[in-house]
Amino acid sequence: MTYKFSNNMQSVTGLATREIFKLLSKPEIISFAGGLPANECLPTEAVARISNELLTSAEGKAILQYGTTEGIATLRTELVKYATSEGLKATDSELMVLSGGQQGIDLFIKAFCNKGDVVLVENPTFLAFLQVANSYGVRCIGVKSDDKGLDITDLEAKIKEHKPKALYVVPTFSNPTGKTYTAECRKAICEVTAKYGIMVLEDDPYSRLRWTGDRVPPLKAFDNTGNVVYVTSFSKLISPGLRVGFCIGEQEVIRKMTIGKQCADLHTSNLSQAIVREFLRGGLLEPHIKIALPIYQKRAKTMLDCLAEYMPKTFEYTKPEGGLFVWGEFKDKTNTVQKFEQAIANNVAYIQGQVFYADSGGLNTLRLNFSNADPEKIKQGVKALGKVFGK
Amino acid sequence: MTYKFSNNMQSVTGLATREIFKLLSKPEIISFAGGLPANECLPTEAVARISNELLTSAEGKAILQYGTTEGIATLRTELVKYATSEGLKATDSELMVLSGGQQGIDLFIKAFCNKGDVVLVENPTFLAFLQVANSYGVRCIGVKSDDKGLDITDLEAKIKEHKPKALYVVPTFSNPTGKTYTAECRKAICEVTAKYGIMVLEDDPYSRLRWTGDRVPPLKAFDNTGNVVYVTSFSKLISPGLRVGFCIGEQEVIRKMTIGKQCADLHTSNLSQAIVREFLRGGLLEPHIKIALPIYQKRAKTMLDCLAEYMPKTFEYTKPEGGLFVWGEFKDKTNTVQKFEQAIANNVAYIQGQVFYADSGGLNTLRLNFSNADPEKIKQGVKALGKVFGK
Repeated sequence: MTYKFSNNMQSVTGLATREIFKLLSKPEIISFAGGLPANECLPTEAVARISNELLTSAEGKAILQYGTTEGIATLRTELVKYATSEGLKATDSELMVLSGGQQGIDLFIKAFCNKGDVVLVENPTFLAFLQVANSYGVRCIGVKSDDKGLDITDLEAKIKEHKPKALYVVPTFSNPTGKTYTAECRKAICEVTAKYGIMVLEDDPYSRLRWTGDRVPPLKAFDNTGNVVYVTSFSKLISPGLRVGFCIGEQEVIRKMTIGKQCADLHTSNLSQAIVREFLRGGLLEPHIKIALPIYQKRAKTMLDCLAEYMPKTFEYTKPEGGLFVWGEFKDKTNTVQKFEQAIANNVAYIQGQVFYADSGGLNTLRLNFSNADPEKIKQGVKALGKVFGK
Repeated sequence: MTYKFSNNMQSVTGLATREIFKLLSKPEIISFAGGLPANECLPTEAVARISNELLTSAEGKAILQYGTTEGIATLRTELVKYATSEGLKATDSELMVLSGGQQGIDLFIKAFCNKGDVVLVENPTFLAFLQVANSYGVRCIGVKSDDKGLDITDLEAKIKEHKPKALYVVPTFSNPTGKTYTAECRKAICEVTAKYGIMVLEDDPYSRLRWTGDRVPPLKAFDNTGNVVYVTSFSKLISPGLRVGFCIGEQEVIRKMTIGKQCADLHTSNLSQAIVREFLRGGLLEPHIKIALPIYQKRAKTMLDCLAEYMPKTFEYTKPEGGLFVWGEFKDKTNTVQKFEQAIANNVAYIQGQVFYADSGGLNTLRLNFSNADPEKIKQGVKALGKVFGK
């Protein structure tokens, strides 16, 4: 049979990162390609104990039974408290549990966008957002940015030109660049999007992974009109394998996204939800993050030091204060897509920056992840990169 | 802010069953409204032990780390064996793990249907299918059926008239009717859909819950052209709270649905997946089903006996050989939508059959679930129904 796939899905291809994820089953390859938390920071013992306690408790049957789409009520209560501590106001009905942060992107686009609509994104942006948008026939247009965040003049110009439905941003330790928007930039984004009635999706999976510098309030904290939806996840803080995130928005928006989730997966695994709840309720999350931060900081420092030592002078890169990524750019237009095979042959992997662009830009860029390799491997890997890109 | 939701989602409302699920927090209400497995059949002890073993094993870190979209490789190996034992041939690349069977419906429609397309369904059909179709702007047209299954003449006529993209069926212990298609009907469905190049989604969450009568091969077993996608779930066999299902189709179809899943939730909870794998690998599933079946059989028998005793003669109903549901129809056109409030006032809940219809039919029908109330409650509940519907 010749299959005739839907118009929206015909052009959607697998994520470059996911494809590389499969490639990396070769153990000799040092991968800077993923966005995986450090294995050392995955709390197997705590989760084993918590799972056992939960399932042998009076709640055990409820955990294995069907649950509500919005998420387990007692988890939602903890999430409201957690959100408050993060500078976000939310009542119970302004918050829903997600099967990972990725689902928040899917449900947001489903709720707001029609085929042919435009969504503005930072250029470069999180590539899964580009993929999800594509799966709905939504067109992404890039907005310029600098070290302070989005270029507000360009944002307003693009709003006027393209009449977008929404803006998508990762304002703290951005994927892929590792950059953080200033508070002023966040405030300005809220003002200009509110002025034109544009929805904003703030994707914030990394902000808690800050090991230096001052915290910046979430963009959502500057939202006075309810046009910002905030999505975050416990993938980088507890475990990505459990698939738990949550989002915050006005009640009407959360209600619509909840109906979207009913259609998608009915509800998130109750066991995963209850495990995250115990991390919050039992005060395990904060100490766990405190243990993880120095590990990430050391890896980031090692990578930055090695980049200085082994990479050519034409390679410029970000110096993140948190998160998982370093973003690099060759000022001499070295093509990172063409170099990729050679890198794999040298047993090192990165992500070609081009995949993060809404247009055809970024051929001279790459993203490096430092969280999932130990310092020794990082040294070895960057040394190999240095060979590939010829210091 | 006034929200402008997407055209597709504007008209999608919450599922009737989900709304009733929330209503049922009143403990005095006896609910025949859900589709919940018996709490007695939820294996809390086994899952507690397995979780603990998994997370303290060498695999613990991998379980908490990101996984592949297709599902854990070792689970997929077990699923291939399980599928074989169910009369289904599938290689590893013809199978993918789902976050519950519901996700299979979503990914199938996403892969194949454009806004405005028609999908044929049995009338009545699983209401979540109608909701998901609606969320994609896909129109459902009902096909007639009788005790042997779909009316093949009507199916072919509707194919010619509406040029549908796909047909959706629940051929074994159908939700909502509890009926099972004959092998002849299944073969005929495969032939006629293959003839016109129509995709088929076979939804099969209930077939293992058979306590009497002969097993009928899955519809997919009669598929010679690769136009049938088979979806099933462990929600009714192990636990709905874990959210694990899987689907089978030709490699090209599974690949497209995998990309759809990447967009939706990246992957299913690894912990949930590994738990299901241990049930299969450790030979726990079959004994567990053997313990569950007499419980369901007894509840079904109690309900059927009580319906005979307490309901008026104008009420006709199915006598299922398995599954979770009895389907009833008032021959005197009693309106079950109008009677619902009175039922709740009498502390008993059912689902108005109308919600399962692709058209405005079924006002004189209702669905009763027998799996989630013990025999004493069933007796009490049907007695209350008898009062509401006045024997």
